[in-house]
Amino acid sequence: MMTPYHSADRMQGIQPFRVMELLARARRLEAEGRDIVHMEIGEPDFPTPEPVVRAVTRAIAKGDVHYTPATGLSVLRDAIAGFYRQRYGVEVDAARVVVTPGASGALLLVLGVILNPGQSVLMADPGYPCNRNFVRFLEGRSLAVPVTADSDYQLTAEIVARHWDETTRAVLVASPSNPTGTLIPQAELRAIHEIVQQRGGILIVDEIYHGLVYKGKAQTALALDGDVFVINSFSKYFGLTGWRIGWMVAPQAAIADLDKLAQNLFLAAPTPAQYAALAAFEPETRRILEQRRAAFKQRRDYLLPALRGLGFDIPVNPQGAFYLYANCERFTDDSLQFAETLLEQVGIAVTPGLDFGSNQAEKHLRFAYTTSMERLEEGIRRLKNYL
Amino acid sequence: MMTPYHSADRMQGIQPFRVMELLARARRLEAEGRDIVHMEIGEPDFPTPEPVVRAVTRAIAKGDVHYTPATGLSVLRDAIAGFYRQRYGVEVDAARVVVTPGASGALLLVLGVILNPGQSVLMADPGYPCNRNFVRFLEGRSLAVPVTADSDYQLTAEIVARHWDETTRAVLVASPSNPTGTLIPQAELRAIHEIVQQRGGILIVDEIYHGLVYKGKAQTALALDGDVFVINSFSKYFGLTGWRIGWMVAPQAAIADLDKLAQNLFLAAPTPAQYAALAAFEPETRRILEQRRAAFKQRRDYLLPALRGLGFDIPVNPQGAFYLYANCERFTDDSLQFAETLLEQVGIAVTPGLDFGSNQAEKHLRFAYTTSMERLEEGIRRLKNYL
Repeated sequence: MMTPYHSADRMQGIQPFRVMELLARARRLEAEGRDIVHMEIGEPDFPTPEPVVRAVTRAIAKGDVHYTPATGLSVLRDAIAGFYRQRYGVEVDAARVVVTPGASGALLLVLGVILNPGQSVLMADPGYPCNRNFVRFLEGRSLAVPVTADSDYQLTAEIVARHWDETTRAVLVASPSNPTGTLIPQAELRAIHEIVQQRGGILIVDEIYHGLVYKGKAQTALALDGDVFVINSFSKYFGLTGWRIGWMVAPQAAIADLDKLAQNLFLAAPTPAQYAALAAFEPETRRILEQRRAAFKQRRDYLLPALRGLGFDIPVNPQGAFYLYANCERFTDDSLQFAETLLEQVGIAVTPGLDFGSNQAEKHLRFAYTTSMERLEEGIRRLKNYL
Repeated sequence: MMTPYHSADRMQGIQPFRVMELLARARRLEAEGRDIVHMEIGEPDFPTPEPVVRAVTRAIAKGDVHYTPATGLSVLRDAIAGFYRQRYGVEVDAARVVVTPGASGALLLVLGVILNPGQSVLMADPGYPCNRNFVRFLEGRSLAVPVTADSDYQLTAEIVARHWDETTRAVLVASPSNPTGTLIPQAELRAIHEIVQQRGGILIVDEIYHGLVYKGKAQTALALDGDVFVINSFSKYFGLTGWRIGWMVAPQAAIADLDKLAQNLFLAAPTPAQYAALAAFEPETRRILEQRRAAFKQRRDYLLPALRGLGFDIPVNPQGAFYLYANCERFTDDSLQFAETLLEQVGIAVTPGLDFGSNQAEKHLRFAYTTSMERLEEGIRRLKNYL
């Protein structure tokens, strides 16, 4: 008898990450004894900060491992509100904070409460690949607008106004961006917000890479208005990747819906991770995190000129995150094939542009500087020999 | 300027859990110094087993807190496959196991990969409230079929055949059931599976309360056929609630889709929870869990006759889970109001039937025996005085 399984239609529109296949192949090569320089992974190489480990171990030993309210521990929501006050000078009511299982959980919640089937969400191409997949999952349509170095690979108010149509429900921007590491200047973000507000739409700002900014200081979109949805994560600056913990700050009017949806989809974010997040705000942890930020900056300052020197075109200096988005058309017109070659023949794992959209994707690679200076130098040595 | 927030249509069809409001009110009463007997919470009162605490603490200290593959640590998938071999004598390929952020994550994934908008899922009313909300979230329709004591509050093959129509894509059953604690006999489940298979549909079996069965031994639906989706959790028998960790076993043909969707929706289940789950299978842990199962049985054997003696009608002896679903029409025709009265005036928190559907919901309450014998006895004393 035939298996009755066949995919729901939405699965045709949801692509797997190419990098996962590359990563699996890299692991197989390593198992065979090959040495691979990992510049593909969007995960900091640093361990969980020691004060966080101590706090979580204490919480687990005490038995603080029961379900929390769906929007998170109230002490953690308070701490997040305090973080905005202290870091950005912005007052945020703790009641507007929703703790989520990673920023992924936050994206699913916010799109779940605002987006009807058939409605569209404006976003930049290249951009974080899950964004368009979340939209497809909810039967919406993502309008991925090709962006170039001219706008620092970001949407602008002008671009938003030009692409807005009657189906548009929301604009989703990321500052700093994955994969390009570029920011949206606050004045531009304000202009985008005004357009969105005039159109009666929703502005969602992904601030997941806040904290990892190497020039100037990122401002939060929460300074603009109480109607913006801001998404953040403890995975990147705070380094708590595998714990799966993030948050969002939402308009007060949306909180009851978000609470209701979180109850159903997740029950709550993992409790040990919530205690980890709480300890991530402690001064001792923050000192460690600032040292790590300095290490990331040093890596960027090495890798950026090194790649340019080899012939990769990186027209905009990325100010944040831990990625360089490099044009490789001097070497190839098929960056997926090129990434496979770099892995198999050169022992370097990088992410092909196809994972971030279709805008000149075949001409781009993303290099992550989530590995040590020594390994980055080894990677550059290998690249140089090969090229 | 008006806030542009308004809910997506799906939010109208998704209800919050009434019990959450009751729980919040109970907490406020406790803060005022009142003593409340908690029989509302679907969370075992036991702490994380000591061997699990030790194993997790070790993993965290070692730095095993990075992202895992989207389908979970391969050692954990192997351990889950081994669990089916050892406990049920059923061979399951580890490649068919998907580790998820709680059983909630598994439900979202399986419905995500099989269900198109407008398609319907057959399920029992009363039943776990999130099931119909997951279906609504994905623009599907849940067909909640009223079930009675005549079928042990479960769907039967006859009921499935009678309600199947051209929009039906899947049947979702839970054995043991929340809120009724009843099981589906394996022969009946086989008959349901045959009907579903004949119709070219999908059978999803929620085995979340497996392990907490007090008479006989539950058999897994995986013994029927490789085309069944089975969902399970580490929250109930294994007692790892706040960790948010569960799993599913799926047909081989669905694994690539599930992997892809898990990558996008979750990245992966929380890593510390995966190490906790791994330790949950150790013999030392299993001995502790079996003692707890005996404690739950003792509680059920006390609470069931005690409630009946007070005039609650519980026509079927529940064989599993930790719930009693009691008809309270002798006392009220509004169980929500009655639950509020019991909380405010009697100091007992229970869950109103409305949380589980609309089938005679106003005549039912769910009592959870997730608290100690002493507290259950205190609850019965208070109830007796009041009634």
